[in-house]
Amino acid sequence: MSEHPRPPHHLDFVDLGRKVGGIAGETVFQSARRNGVRIVGACGGRGTCGTCMVRIAGGGIEHHPDEDGSHGRSWLRACRITPRTDCAVEIAPRSLAAVVRAETEGEHGECLAVDARIVAVDVQVPPATLADPTGDTERMARALDRPVDTIELTAARQLPELLRRHDGAVRVRLRGDSIIGFSAVNRPLLGLAVDLGTTNAAAFLLDLESGRRLAGIGIENPQVAWGADVISRINHAIRAPAGGEELRLAILGGLNALAHDLCHAVGADRADIIDAAICGNTAMHHLLAGLPVHQLGRAPFVAAVSGAMEVGAAELGLDICPGARVHLVANVGGFVGGDHVTALLATESRWSDGTSLVMDIGTNTEISLIHDGVILSASSPSGPALEGGHISCGMRAAEGAIERVAVVDGRIVTGTIGDKPAIGLCGSGVLDAVASLLGTGMVDRRGRLSAAHADVISNDGQLAARLTPGVVLTQEDIRAVQLAKAAIRTATDLLLDRAGLAADDIRHFIIAGAFGQYIDIASGIAIGLLPALPPERFEQVGNAAGLGVRRILLSRADMRRSVELAARCQYVDMSGSKEFQKKFMSNIALTNGETS
Amino acid sequence: MSEHPRPPHHLDFVDLGRKVGGIAGETVFQSARRNGVRIVGACGGRGTCGTCMVRIAGGGIEHHPDEDGSHGRSWLRACRITPRTDCAVEIAPRSLAAVVRAETEGEHGECLAVDARIVAVDVQVPPATLADPTGDTERMARALDRPVDTIELTAARQLPELLRRHDGAVRVRLRGDSIIGFSAVNRPLLGLAVDLGTTNAAAFLLDLESGRRLAGIGIENPQVAWGADVISRINHAIRAPAGGEELRLAILGGLNALAHDLCHAVGADRADIIDAAICGNTAMHHLLAGLPVHQLGRAPFVAAVSGAMEVGAAELGLDICPGARVHLVANVGGFVGGDHVTALLATESRWSDGTSLVMDIGTNTEISLIHDGVILSASSPSGPALEGGHISCGMRAAEGAIERVAVVDGRIVTGTIGDKPAIGLCGSGVLDAVASLLGTGMVDRRGRLSAAHADVISNDGQLAARLTPGVVLTQEDIRAVQLAKAAIRTATDLLLDRAGLAADDIRHFIIAGAFGQYIDIASGIAIGLLPALPPERFEQVGNAAGLGVRRILLSRADMRRSVELAARCQYVDMSGSKEFQKKFMSNIALTNGETS
Repeated sequence: MSEHPRPPHHLDFVDLGRKVGGIAGETVFQSARRNGVRIVGACGGRGTCGTCMVRIAGGGIEHHPDEDGSHGRSWLRACRITPRTDCAVEIAPRSLAAVVRAETEGEHGECLAVDARIVAVDVQVPPATLADPTGDTERMARALDRPVDTIELTAARQLPELLRRHDGAVRVRLRGDSIIGFSAVNRPLLGLAVDLGTTNAAAFLLDLESGRRLAGIGIENPQVAWGADVISRINHAIRAPAGGEELRLAILGGLNALAHDLCHAVGADRADIIDAAICGNTAMHHLLAGLPVHQLGRAPFVAAVSGAMEVGAAELGLDICPGARVHLVANVGGFVGGDHVTALLATESRWSDGTSLVMDIGTNTEISLIHDGVILSASSPSGPALEGGHISCGMRAAEGAIERVAVVDGRIVTGTIGDKPAIGLCGSGVLDAVASLLGTGMVDRRGRLSAAHADVISNDGQLAARLTPGVVLTQEDIRAVQLAKAAIRTATDLLLDRAGLAADDIRHFIIAGAFGQYIDIASGIAIGLLPALPPERFEQVGNAAGLGVRRILLSRADMRRSVELAARCQYVDMSGSKEFQKKFMSNIALTNGETS
Repeated sequence: MSEHPRPPHHLDFVDLGRKVGGIAGETVFQSARRNGVRIVGACGGRGTCGTCMVRIAGGGIEHHPDEDGSHGRSWLRACRITPRTDCAVEIAPRSLAAVVRAETEGEHGECLAVDARIVAVDVQVPPATLADPTGDTERMARALDRPVDTIELTAARQLPELLRRHDGAVRVRLRGDSIIGFSAVNRPLLGLAVDLGTTNAAAFLLDLESGRRLAGIGIENPQVAWGADVISRINHAIRAPAGGEELRLAILGGLNALAHDLCHAVGADRADIIDAAICGNTAMHHLLAGLPVHQLGRAPFVAAVSGAMEVGAAELGLDICPGARVHLVANVGGFVGGDHVTALLATESRWSDGTSLVMDIGTNTEISLIHDGVILSASSPSGPALEGGHISCGMRAAEGAIERVAVVDGRIVTGTIGDKPAIGLCGSGVLDAVASLLGTGMVDRRGRLSAAHADVISNDGQLAARLTPGVVLTQEDIRAVQLAKAAIRTATDLLLDRAGLAADDIRHFIIAGAFGQYIDIASGIAIGLLPALPPERFEQVGNAAGLGVRRILLSRADMRRSVELAARCQYVDMSGSKEFQKKFMSNIALTNGETS
């Protein structure tokens, strides 16, 4: 490779209608991910999975030595090629994460009740004359005939040209008595709802007049490049010069890409997105808002802001109608953030009757125990293992991912997404696999693989269980699952202790979240992740946080309710507790906690 | 000169504590002016006046061929040297426009009544603990113990570090129930008031607690580089690609330099400027706010916004406390802007009794006729001649400027600012000179110089009157004064016609503005600029706009009053009127309009 600095280049992802800037030396995959382009990459760009296939329709590239084009005449792995010039890039249909199933499946075509905080009023503004040269804004206000308190500068800048282009016919977009923007009278009122997770972000485009969901898309959180868990990212923000700003720009780029792609999918215009609501855990919330995280990264783990915030879209850097305000959903405390509040909001009808537990399993797992009108909330750093992250053959829930593992006639059988040849394991597959290995005796209660078993092989110096000819689960993978399981179970147990309850007192065990939607409850009970309650007490509700944040965007009552719920939650800190350490150690075993 | 592009360089104006970026090929003078550095340059950088002297304390420069260093061993003309590298620049004391006399003289050490809209409350916030890890903002709000509706994101970003650095002691800066910022408890509350004129900008730093004026500075409006009058600049904004943005950034750079220099002068910090008010004519207002000016540049000359505006400092680009809001004073209509409203506010006690006329003479001259509770307002494009602009020997009101010209014993005598050798003419000197030439018969009523007179010489192919050995007034200069005089007098006459009044009905003829403060009323009457009223009816009140905008910043009552006054003014458009054209032609003669 040349030692000379290359001029900056651009990549034109023609199918997506997106042009992004590349950094010299970066692979096409890296540029795509950094800019939130929805390219699949099961191995994270290590060159091992062959899922990030692209074709270079124009421009010069350099090949990585191992990219021999054997994947097809012109299809190349995006992670193995580096642009030398501007390139036009075509993403293979199977490599384009059009709608990531895990984050956005659920209520397709849903239509929620609407009481949005933005309304539009169409007015006909008479032209100015020499006899009445009243200013544009003032003539508009006279025609509007309702009190106007403030007008956003960005709105005022639009008005003169709109008035003259449309002969005085203009749509006024109002939040209360503030004018946030103007448009032609035929433009829609769109809203953007985002569930911003540590690992994945799901975004939804809503029609604020009908309440209809127009589109939903998920991407990997681009901050993953700086660490899988919130603590790594907080450390990066604290230690690296401008580290916080790097992380802020990464997720902002991702959100802007989501907004672009959502609009592109339905033929809408980003300027028509006039309201937005975003929920995330406290760390994601702070990193997006550019709030300092020093104090969040060490005991007593204090948020800069817990309450709901309204931030100007332009100030936040979100490329939608610049006069829009982004509602950042209220957080609870510690790392229990707005995404848990929205999950509570979306599941309220399920937990309002009798003792209930709401659990959102993710890289950070949030748990609320609701009993006698009190909500005790905790978070547990469970890591990405249960989502297939940091697992040797782990991958996201995409075609070819093993999502089911079962023991049939004493033998392990697998099922993949799309019934394609197995290329890796997604989260539900990981959990099933550990439970199945336990069932077949390939792994013992302490989590040790049995070298004696025919399907336990040696793999890079450690034992590994072979699930299919190409997919294994290693001893380290199993340890990672044990740590995740112990973290979640311990938090559950301690909340029950705090309330003076036993697991059996839980009438409704609500499992929210993309991962939780697909897990096999029996597998969860088998390894001790979940308490052994009767199956009918479990409810897997999918991405409740996504539903909750959509409801907040559409309904002022739900927005107020989310603030009330956040205030009602009592945050229980576990990080410094000796009790946690002790219980955690005993929960590492692959047994149900109560029987250990 | 080298053909290779130069790397970007910086100029460090060491005495001012300011470092600015230079553009390759630009002279030191150009870089200074573009960045609002207060360097004197009477000839506007043409290399003729020698008033922009600097010394290069470090760095490489290229000399213009005519810069031979004859002005002193190491002092060079800033307009004749071009940096090749980063340079440290020392401005000669006489070339540093420390406080431009014209804009800021007046109420030195004034202390106005205070009822500011920003207040500060000191609170002691208890630290967070594991038992109570409530967020920083929420603990602060609890300690504040008064309702808080919103908190600016930029404020929230400051709080965690401030709390930990000062053991929980923090000053909360509030506008109503909005928190706009935090500071250490010992920080002052400062305000910035700006009178933004077409030619000059005057800025004042105020203490919002005591009402005391801490400092005042004036600079030339950096937009002058794109044309002396508002129409030239509007045309640039309309025609040049990104022309409006160029003009916006030019004045913004000037205002930020003013804020910097004001703070530097009193040892304050720009972050302590937590409120601001700016008044200007409608074009200056629009160009600063980035509002479109297409519709303002052609009949019927419609403002995008006439009413008062509140714009976030960060959104405007003003480098003060980012949570501050800048109050843009309400405009009247046409080009009659907030600077006239503030002049009316400041002079209200003078005109509230009896028929009055308030006139602010400038590049655009605004006039209000107040009679029987009605305010009729007009603006007149008088051009810069009466301020010494576009006059062959014109210069700003600085040392060596001829400010007085009189006829003593039939001979012309001159007086300069600072009693220094005459180097040019400032505005009051120009007016006096024309009146004196008329008095001595060197010029006739039609404005023609008499070639027969000994002191009328030939100068570059046209006649010119010699005032001192080096300073002349040319035939073209006299024509420019005639046009300015005719524009102003015609507007006055037409307003009187509209109200059905004669000039003699005016009880109070109030002349506001920097220029108006220094003119000789008798000279004004002699050439017909002013009607021939008894001298005691004239009041020269100095920079009333500056006083008015300071009062608006300090007092919510005055802010409300300015909005009322703007609404009460009835804008009278003259631009398209045939009456104006006719009267204008007859007013060109150097006679009092009534006797012509």
